[in-house]
Amino acid sequence: MLSYTGSMTEAQTYTIAVIPGDGIGKEITPQAQAVMEKATEGVAQFRYVPFDLGADRYLRDGVILTDEILEEIKKTDAILLGAIGDPRIKAGILERGLLLKMRFALDHYINLRPSKLYKGVTSPLANPGEIDFVVVREGTEGLYAGAGGSTHAGTNQQVATEVSINSAPGVERTVRYAFELAMKRRKHVTLVHKKNVLVNAGDMWQRIVNEVAEEYPEVTHDYLHIDATTIFIVTDPGRFDVILTDNLFGDIITDEAGAVVGGVGYSASGNINASGQYPSMFEPIHGSAPDIAGQGIANPTAAILSAAMLLRHLGLEEPAQRIEAAVEADIAEKGSTQRSTEQVGQDILDRLSE
Amino acid sequence: MLSYTGSMTEAQTYTIAVIPGDGIGKEITPQAQAVMEKATEGVAQFRYVPFDLGADRYLRDGVILTDEILEEIKKTDAILLGAIGDPRIKAGILERGLLLKMRFALDHYINLRPSKLYKGVTSPLANPGEIDFVVVREGTEGLYAGAGGSTHAGTNQQVATEVSINSAPGVERTVRYAFELAMKRRKHVTLVHKKNVLVNAGDMWQRIVNEVAEEYPEVTHDYLHIDATTIFIVTDPGRFDVILTDNLFGDIITDEAGAVVGGVGYSASGNINASGQYPSMFEPIHGSAPDIAGQGIANPTAAILSAAMLLRHLGLEEPAQRIEAAVEADIAEKGSTQRSTEQVGQDILDRLSE
Ligand SMILES: CC(C)[C@H](C(=O)O)[C@@H](O)C(=O)O
Ligand SMILES: CC(C)[C@H](C(=O)O)[C@@H](O)C(=O)O
Repeated sequence: MLSYTGSMTEAQTYTIAVIPGDGIGKEITPQAQAVMEKATEGVAQFRYVPFDLGADRYLRDGVILTDEILEEIKKTDAILLGAIGDPRIKAGILERGLLLKMRFALDHYINLRPSKLYKGVTSPLANPGEIDFVVVREGTEGLYAGAGGSTHAGTNQQVATEVSINSAPGVERTVRYAFELAMKRRKHVTLVHKKNVLVNAGDMWQRIVNEVAEEYPEVTHDYLHIDATTIFIVTDPGRFDVILTDNLFGDIITDEAGAVVGGVGYSASGNINASGQYPSMFEPIHGSAPDIAGQGIANPTAAILSAAMLLRHLGLEEPAQRIEAAVEADIAEKGSTQRSTEQVGQDILDRLSE
Repeated sequence: MLSYTGSMTEAQTYTIAVIPGDGIGKEITPQAQAVMEKATEGVAQFRYVPFDLGADRYLRDGVILTDEILEEIKKTDAILLGAIGDPRIKAGILERGLLLKMRFALDHYINLRPSKLYKGVTSPLANPGEIDFVVVREGTEGLYAGAGGSTHAGTNQQVATEVSINSAPGVERTVRYAFELAMKRRKHVTLVHKKNVLVNAGDMWQRIVNEVAEEYPEVTHDYLHIDATTIFIVTDPGRFDVILTDNLFGDIITDEAGAVVGGVGYSASGNINASGQYPSMFEPIHGSAPDIAGQGIANPTAAILSAAMLLRHLGLEEPAQRIEAAVEADIAEKGSTQRSTEQVGQDILDRLSE
């Protein structure tokens, strides 16, 4: 129903690529879209372009992600993704052919992953305290470059390598993003690496952090080895504000962080091209959960929080905050009750109408 | 006091290299030695060869670990190490020049790290359940090979690489060790890697596990990505028996595991040359803790458990078990009371005399 008054006439239209993907991805994505719609009523409109990508598509016609599809995706303003993965497909095929290919092709150099312990969520930690940090993970370099190889593959003389490639410009833009983000938060950056062993990459990360930090005198920064970080995430997660780290360490840390805030079911993420050249992608941290797919019981909260991140990225800060507040209130009240996917979506929609 | 009857005459003498190292390393190592002595009375004798290595030595005369010193160490039957590290020294110098150099020169291809939640220890987890697993970490390959480099170092065009090198023989001997160990335990091996991204190394690890597993029909095995593993260590650590993984993933996982069993203060480790060509090294997982060094309050439990591992490695299984039982009883009774380093050592000695 159109209204011809008020801000409606100014409502901007955004084109959103929607990739529901596999398993529960197909169930949670519609809930995220409904919430996006509701929260932006009168201030934004969305044109959704669905992309049939993931395991089913691959098994049907062998397509993972073609250059033509990528060109179509590049025309959109942002991407909303559900989940990708299927036990019928060998590990690595879809991850590298779809998820990582997209991150690289769209230069998603910031992988942004907030970890927050919501009231009403039970942490596996006995005394979690307040947990509210964000991991800024580099998304286009490091061991994800795909630069490994093998000799004598399949024999007992095989040698397999994996190469971590790190460039100063690639690191610097990530470091800058982290310090900018820290300025909007509690103004503390923790660099996580393993510089006592990976001295080449580690020293470069530390050098660039030290250099950029000089431009942000209000932001304090410290350093932790990745191994020590896994300890503090369990024993003192409250110490973190912005964690800044490379691609692989970020992958590891954010899953552990998801666990201590009560499960990756509450963790959203953004794969962000902060330069604005390409559309950014927003997705829950969790996977396609084939064990519970098709039952309508998957929790859409992480997908809904990902939609909020998407809105923030488009500059729609106020609707993003309203969604986050609604989610927070929903969890505080109903956190531990079993609800269907639709019911959680509906409960959050209802709160947005209040 | 010598006795001329009984098993004393058969007591074998072992030569042990002792490297107390830095900080609390100097305080806990004597306790570990005293306990070793006591537990083996009448069945073994030890000749200790002290090595003055670590930060103090390096700052004094620049020596980290020379080839001559290495040759001396090679003549011993095993190495007992306290802890290495000092904030006055740039990260990487002592780690690479001493600890890693020793692991590589003495072909310590098995890094063995048990994680056990003792009765009397408070885990940071709300419902830890029973935790009793061992991580078998490869110790001489992977990203620890030191095979990285830089171009344009120090400039904004720097490119820094780190290369993970993995050989089939290097992986296979580690996999065999894990399956042998599983046979003595609950007969389950979990391979941890990131084979959906690091496909070259990951596929090789998985292939070799599959091959070796055929020789151990009683042992079941499964696979987890490193990121998912960090979740399960927090949410379901009881699922693990033997975790088998590479050098870097093992470094990360064992610290997180140390945290959930109540702190790395209870975690021992062995750097083992399982072929017997070179002496193996035993050390606590924790560091030199400069913040509490010199106060006589460091907990020597992990060092004492490391001494038990050393004895087991020398074939002294019964004294090793007696030490572990004494430690277990000590923690169960006094786990949370504040005691001096000496008092903990004395309490464990007293139990061994009972
Ligand atoms: C699916 C996989 C390739 C991916 C990654 O390793 O980045 C995932 O674990 C993630 O964290 O988004
Ligand atoms: C000190 C460091 C080189 C070492 C490692 O990374 O292996 C330590 O963290 C360990 O786990 O023994």
